[in-house]
Amino acid sequence: MKITEVLVRDIRFPTSYDLDGSDALNRGDYSATYVTLLTDSGLTGDGLTFTNGRGNEVCVAAVRALEHHVVGRRLSDILGNLRGFYRDLTVDNQLRWLGPEKGILHMATGALINAMWDLWAKREGKPMWKLLADLTPEQIVAAIDFTYITDVLTPEEALEMLHRQQLGKTAREAEMRRDGFPAYTTSTSWLGYPDDKVRRLCREAITQGWTAFKMKVGLNLDDNVQRAALMREEIGGERRLMMDANQCWDVGEAIRHMKELARFDPWWIEEPTSPDDVLGHATIARAVAPIGVATGEVCQNRVLFKQFLQADAISFLQVDSCRMGGVNEVLAVLLMAAKFGVPVCPHAGGVGLCEYVQHISIFDYIAVSGSLENRMCEYVDHLHEHFVDPCVVRNAHYVAPLRPGYSISIRPESLDAYEFPGGRIWRALETVA
Amino acid sequence: MKITEVLVRDIRFPTSYDLDGSDALNRGDYSATYVTLLTDSGLTGDGLTFTNGRGNEVCVAAVRALEHHVVGRRLSDILGNLRGFYRDLTVDNQLRWLGPEKGILHMATGALINAMWDLWAKREGKPMWKLLADLTPEQIVAAIDFTYITDVLTPEEALEMLHRQQLGKTAREAEMRRDGFPAYTTSTSWLGYPDDKVRRLCREAITQGWTAFKMKVGLNLDDNVQRAALMREEIGGERRLMMDANQCWDVGEAIRHMKELARFDPWWIEEPTSPDDVLGHATIARAVAPIGVATGEVCQNRVLFKQFLQADAISFLQVDSCRMGGVNEVLAVLLMAAKFGVPVCPHAGGVGLCEYVQHISIFDYIAVSGSLENRMCEYVDHLHEHFVDPCVVRNAHYVAPLRPGYSISIRPESLDAYEFPGGRIWRALETVA
Repeated sequence: MKITEVLVRDIRFPTSYDLDGSDALNRGDYSATYVTLLTDSGLTGDGLTFTNGRGNEVCVAAVRALEHHVVGRRLSDILGNLRGFYRDLTVDNQLRWLGPEKGILHMATGALINAMWDLWAKREGKPMWKLLADLTPEQIVAAIDFTYITDVLTPEEALEMLHRQQLGKTAREAEMRRDGFPAYTTSTSWLGYPDDKVRRLCREAITQGWTAFKMKVGLNLDDNVQRAALMREEIGGERRLMMDANQCWDVGEAIRHMKELARFDPWWIEEPTSPDDVLGHATIARAVAPIGVATGEVCQNRVLFKQFLQADAISFLQVDSCRMGGVNEVLAVLLMAAKFGVPVCPHAGGVGLCEYVQHISIFDYIAVSGSLENRMCEYVDHLHEHFVDPCVVRNAHYVAPLRPGYSISIRPESLDAYEFPGGRIWRALETVA
Repeated sequence: MKITEVLVRDIRFPTSYDLDGSDALNRGDYSATYVTLLTDSGLTGDGLTFTNGRGNEVCVAAVRALEHHVVGRRLSDILGNLRGFYRDLTVDNQLRWLGPEKGILHMATGALINAMWDLWAKREGKPMWKLLADLTPEQIVAAIDFTYITDVLTPEEALEMLHRQQLGKTAREAEMRRDGFPAYTTSTSWLGYPDDKVRRLCREAITQGWTAFKMKVGLNLDDNVQRAALMREEIGGERRLMMDANQCWDVGEAIRHMKELARFDPWWIEEPTSPDDVLGHATIARAVAPIGVATGEVCQNRVLFKQFLQADAISFLQVDSCRMGGVNEVLAVLLMAAKFGVPVCPHAGGVGLCEYVQHISIFDYIAVSGSLENRMCEYVDHLHEHFVDPCVVRNAHYVAPLRPGYSISIRPESLDAYEFPGGRIWRALETVA
């Protein structure tokens, strides 16, 4: 099977009109740089990277700049050298200057690499998590580029860790098929929502069985205190409350805010400051303990994650499924987290991120971490209706998906309607404006 | 004066055909995303960001995505709130997701911001370094976004540092006009050059008065030792020899190589590993002392530089002029370096980087660091003929430029000839191929 063509589309959902997804620094139109790999067998692979609206066209251009590494390749050749495939994309001797392995170029890389894994999983007739769980430790290790991380994790150590977890895999897989993977909700408390909407959403969520809730915090301490009090009033003292600052504070501000907010017993503070500031997070972590520090949704690559772990800067690692170099780089991060004993609680929301990360968490439990302790996967109730195989949450758990692939294919009619700027929805909005 | 339009062109020089600029990880066509701000007064401002060939078109697309923050603005309004201008570009509530402040988006930001400073300097009739040196400490501080760096540098401290350096400014400016700023050469020893070419270039450089030489090192230790021996043979024991690994090693490899190469008395080892690895550089620095560790040409933003300084990871800070958010962010980095007492030895080469950084180094000496100790600015003898106001090096010193602006304007005939893919040069190469 040979990859004959890369299709890439600029898909945008006008979410900024409702303040869904609003936080201290972002107010976007949830968007996807949507990639489809065509093959000579008729089978296709889909992948996307999530963006926030404007600039999605730049990611599309980045996919175009990378596609020569993908078009014309045989799937069997790629699978025979998965690490090499990753490095073809990330160590291009001209494009690399635009990263390396960060920002727009790396997000485009993630879309392409994830599409290849989707193609593979579909060919095997397995959901992604099952494809991954069935790989041998040797195959997993062969997919990872260990460049720049051998000071904390060598291929040999990774192999040993994966072999150790072979024991109990069958039981953990059965458990996942039966119970699913635990989730928490971010849908109840976006920054732009009025109090009464937050109260209503909390009550509905409790009825649905949710036990852990994330709220957004911002620059104004009084507002944060007021909102935290409201959340605790609604969810009670026993359910978990997490706080998310979306990078709005400097190091000193983060510590000051969290000293005040500590009385609401937050389980973690997420993105207290710049996603690039390893040492800053470490300072905050020491100052606000036992509140845990969490970050990762904007973490650019495995080299930053390595340092967050080395510096004891985070208690929860929130890997993203498509900001980094796709599944290959996620595997490196899962293994490093396991080595340091830090639970992975993936970032989700946006477009398709819930669909993606359910596979990552289920695989992580079955084959890498082997533990559910302090592990939850984010859930946001947005835009799932556009997916061919939308994620299903039942009793605050992601139900293990069973259809072949990475669950990331968007329905053709949604692609047509939301394509920017020519799709039906955007033409209609233009008429209104 | 109002900015009426942003022109942006994809300019590429086919340097990969000669192995000029080749190193362990890069083999590129030196390129520029070239921006011109048009105004209603007829005055124009030029800026560029340097890229390595393929993907330059993605940077061009990123400039297009940002230009709505620039077009229609009055220069006087921008100058009245320079920090605000920087933040308009870097904290756009949709584009920010594609960074923040890193990679392609940030490089495009740098081109636009530098073009604004070029416009301003031309309006004032001053070379950039003189425009900067004549600003009051209050004006300098008002240009800087201190977000995420207040834990090491507050606006108040920055003001105090700049006020302290007011003493002696006049004498230092006279010294720069008389002697220029010290430089070192990277032109003698690219990785792809054969031995005899390296020997010839070293001899020529010594005749020209060069006293400090940088060589490239790579993955093969024997090759590195052989090349270092050759360099020392040519330049003798007294002249400075620097080594540049261009990120080709992991932490352990860097230490092993430098233990062997220490006998050639290198002054610094540059980019020993990933540009993102603050803790890795710190480990290397401790292991290879007294050899200094240097990095910065690919350092993504002020938050990373802050940490390199906090962690004692570098002895030389190699700021780049257009990878970060332009002059505004460079100012933040110069001040942090001065606070930590780390000399700034800017990255140059590529296209226009020498033209840019001479202004930065001269300003740094006059108004920020006040010292020439251990400070040298990189020089590479490439592509200067395409510039309207090319840098001039005399007796291994950059001569202080006197023409108004940031010296970054490319000659119109070069722009036309090297525009990609339609320019004369590229059409001719296509015919050959």
